[in-house]
Amino acid sequence: MAGAFDALMAFQRETEALSQVSMRLAWDQETMMPRNAVDQRSDEIAAMESVLHARQTDPRIGDWLAAVDAAALDPVGQANLRLIRRNFDRATRVPASLAAERARMVSKSHVIWAEARADDNYAAFAPVLKEVIDLRRQEGEALADGGDVYDALLDDYEPGAKASDLEAMFGALRPRLVALREAVLAKPAPADLTGPFDEKLQMKLARVLARAFGYDFQKGRLDKAVHPFSSGSGDDVRITTRTAALDPFNSIYSTIHEVGHACYEQNIAPKHRLTPVGKGASMGVHESQSRIYENQLGRSRAFTGWLYGKMRDLFGDLGIEGEEAFYQAVNKVRNGYIRTEADEVQYNLHVLLRFDLERALIGGDLGVDDLEAAWNDRFKADFGFAVDKPSDGVLQDVHWSAGLFGYFPTYSLGNVYAGCLHEALRADLPDLDDQLAQGDTSKATAWLGDHLQQFGGSAAPRDLIANACGKAPSEEPLLTYLEAKFGDLYSL
Amino acid sequence: MAGAFDALMAFQRETEALSQVSMRLAWDQETMMPRNAVDQRSDEIAAMESVLHARQTDPRIGDWLAAVDAAALDPVGQANLRLIRRNFDRATRVPASLAAERARMVSKSHVIWAEARADDNYAAFAPVLKEVIDLRRQEGEALADGGDVYDALLDDYEPGAKASDLEAMFGALRPRLVALREAVLAKPAPADLTGPFDEKLQMKLARVLARAFGYDFQKGRLDKAVHPFSSGSGDDVRITTRTAALDPFNSIYSTIHEVGHACYEQNIAPKHRLTPVGKGASMGVHESQSRIYENQLGRSRAFTGWLYGKMRDLFGDLGIEGEEAFYQAVNKVRNGYIRTEADEVQYNLHVLLRFDLERALIGGDLGVDDLEAAWNDRFKADFGFAVDKPSDGVLQDVHWSAGLFGYFPTYSLGNVYAGCLHEALRADLPDLDDQLAQGDTSKATAWLGDHLQQFGGSAAPRDLIANACGKAPSEEPLLTYLEAKFGDLYSL
Repeated sequence: MAGAFDALMAFQRETEALSQVSMRLAWDQETMMPRNAVDQRSDEIAAMESVLHARQTDPRIGDWLAAVDAAALDPVGQANLRLIRRNFDRATRVPASLAAERARMVSKSHVIWAEARADDNYAAFAPVLKEVIDLRRQEGEALADGGDVYDALLDDYEPGAKASDLEAMFGALRPRLVALREAVLAKPAPADLTGPFDEKLQMKLARVLARAFGYDFQKGRLDKAVHPFSSGSGDDVRITTRTAALDPFNSIYSTIHEVGHACYEQNIAPKHRLTPVGKGASMGVHESQSRIYENQLGRSRAFTGWLYGKMRDLFGDLGIEGEEAFYQAVNKVRNGYIRTEADEVQYNLHVLLRFDLERALIGGDLGVDDLEAAWNDRFKADFGFAVDKPSDGVLQDVHWSAGLFGYFPTYSLGNVYAGCLHEALRADLPDLDDQLAQGDTSKATAWLGDHLQQFGGSAAPRDLIANACGKAPSEEPLLTYLEAKFGDLYSL
Repeated sequence: MAGAFDALMAFQRETEALSQVSMRLAWDQETMMPRNAVDQRSDEIAAMESVLHARQTDPRIGDWLAAVDAAALDPVGQANLRLIRRNFDRATRVPASLAAERARMVSKSHVIWAEARADDNYAAFAPVLKEVIDLRRQEGEALADGGDVYDALLDDYEPGAKASDLEAMFGALRPRLVALREAVLAKPAPADLTGPFDEKLQMKLARVLARAFGYDFQKGRLDKAVHPFSSGSGDDVRITTRTAALDPFNSIYSTIHEVGHACYEQNIAPKHRLTPVGKGASMGVHESQSRIYENQLGRSRAFTGWLYGKMRDLFGDLGIEGEEAFYQAVNKVRNGYIRTEADEVQYNLHVLLRFDLERALIGGDLGVDDLEAAWNDRFKADFGFAVDKPSDGVLQDVHWSAGLFGYFPTYSLGNVYAGCLHEALRADLPDLDDQLAQGDTSKATAWLGDHLQQFGGSAAPRDLIANACGKAPSEEPLLTYLEAKFGDLYSL
């Protein structure tokens, strides 16, 4: 019995190590790879994928699982066993031919989507999107085993989540966010910074900020890339950021966001290294960390006061004067089409739109040919103005072309979780603002480390948040926080 | 039949791709990896090794090999088949338990060697060296199948080479190199450069030199590392170099050396990418490229004339005046204990010493307890002065601690091959010095590309050199070149 579990875990550790290697490779591709190595790199990545896929469905896993006596294991062992069983069940339910066809389709679909977006031509993308949805639906049916197909897909990113629960939660968010948005935008707009801002100094500031939020450069590194991301687990968690001469907030808040993801991985207890438990619990929990670092801490009045001083030291004149004006500029709410550029008030409205549309697509209630119109109608309803072109609308995100249905809601779930954690953290740390005003996040990040991050994936995502907060998660803390913050900022 | 070969090659391409991934990982470790990721990286590398080892001995290879009709294949197919068969035969002859025990032993042995070297205590290293030799001898016996054990090990690095042939070749080198060394050192020593030399400018010069020798930065990159190396094949071949403020030649010639290795890999015909043929043919052929770039081209009077101008432009005063004095400084022969720091005249004497000693060790004619004395005696005989301490003598190289018996002679074989190639290349390019004097190596490197590099591993190493040169390789061209060059330099 113990022998089977040990063999299973040894196999799993090797798989996790190989999966880390794949992540190093992906990081390398975005940061270091020579330009003309791209074709060869595809072969290298495909070879790693093939090895990993074979291991995920290795029949020995089934034998070991059958031989293990779960009751004899300690809680961590049981948590690992649960994750291994879950992943094996899911991997073996999808026929290999379907998985292969999906991989092929997604690779083709990505190219067509990129062209359609460049041409602002949704009709060119629709046929391949139909095929992607059809394949994902088949996959969902195989996984759902009679249950809800969308839930089965969602489970890839947020184990245990149900769309009906999310619907209730998000349903409560929408009207209050729409109302808040309207109230804020009726007020005079704050001033912007005036650039340009030297991009080398922006990278220097990014390093200062990463350190300020507790990122460990002995277990990671920060490089420049086209897209900011965090990559890896355990003792090698790397982040990237980008810079734009006229918009220093882009680099600053991308960096803090990725630092949140990375610190989660870096702060998981070392005993979990290279085990199934030794990774973030879900996309939603991961996003809760990136968002609380970025928003509730990084965009707070106290922290931006410190940041204002840092930026003045680095860049000199910023084009605005005083900590309050700077705080307003950081948190400026403005009309925009693009999810990734949205402020705290509007971000979740972008996500809820996608969640509702993709559920309807997978459920068959919305046809692909009607998607563009449905997007544009919903956008007008929530944001009050019309989409000008598909690249600013239905074609803006890569997710659907990659078959990532069920991924979007984890962004808003992360924001909801961040709201809950922030409420609990503030209650435990009454003098937090005094620390943040000194650029000191150590108490806040230690709280997150102690209450959440160290546990990795050792429990269900929702349970981890509930344990950290001392109560079940709900949308209320996020709404209360947003209404208070922006009510104050915009004198509502 | 064709089906079996296609399946075999598809499997092999995936293996080659995974082996490239391992190389990226090793490169990352030396250049980019965060400091505290070292333990996790060991697990990642071990996981890749385990996957690669399983593939090398995968029984399906044997089935495919049995089913292929070699006569129906084109010459490239036959060459790939030969390499696959050879590698499979070797991999399956060594029992898995022996391979695993060796890996474990080598990892332990490396630590003990490093400590013994730091303490200058050969006796502390001797016991583990005995175990390493014992394991390697067992491995050699399994591979030799009744033949010569040292040859069986040598074959790992130089397929088809026999120690008895090398002994004859190297035997002819030794007396003339010893005589040349003595004659040169009896003459007044040339002047050295006077530093320091800015290390950022040295890196800039390294990039200029890499380009000058045809290194393609679209298929590679140059970074700083503790040890210079070249890594990867095909479209992703990366090099590293190092800098020392007082010794700019260290960076310059390390860079050109690694560029030689890298250009060999970059210039293999693209059709061979990720196939067994698509890599350098052997360590010896590889070293012929690094050495001809570094020495016969890079240390030539014509090229150093151009380099002198470049260095003056970059660094200003070098402490010596004029191209001739610079040429003498580049090629200065001086007493030294360390192989890796040796000049063209003495380098092979260091290697021949190791070749003779390691053959005696493996053959049982020399005991590990007598190795230090044997080293010191031989060193005194060839170099005319005594070894001062083990770290300058028997403990200086990492190779034996890593079980790399049969590796050393490939260095000198590479020099011999470089001598042959240089003779043939000069005969075809009578105006080569005019180009080199302009810093233009393009005709020389194109000659090497056309005559040798493009073919990768598609024939036996010795045959590739013979085909490139139009005659069988011998030590004579190297000796003639060295005696002429240093006779002229030192007015012998």
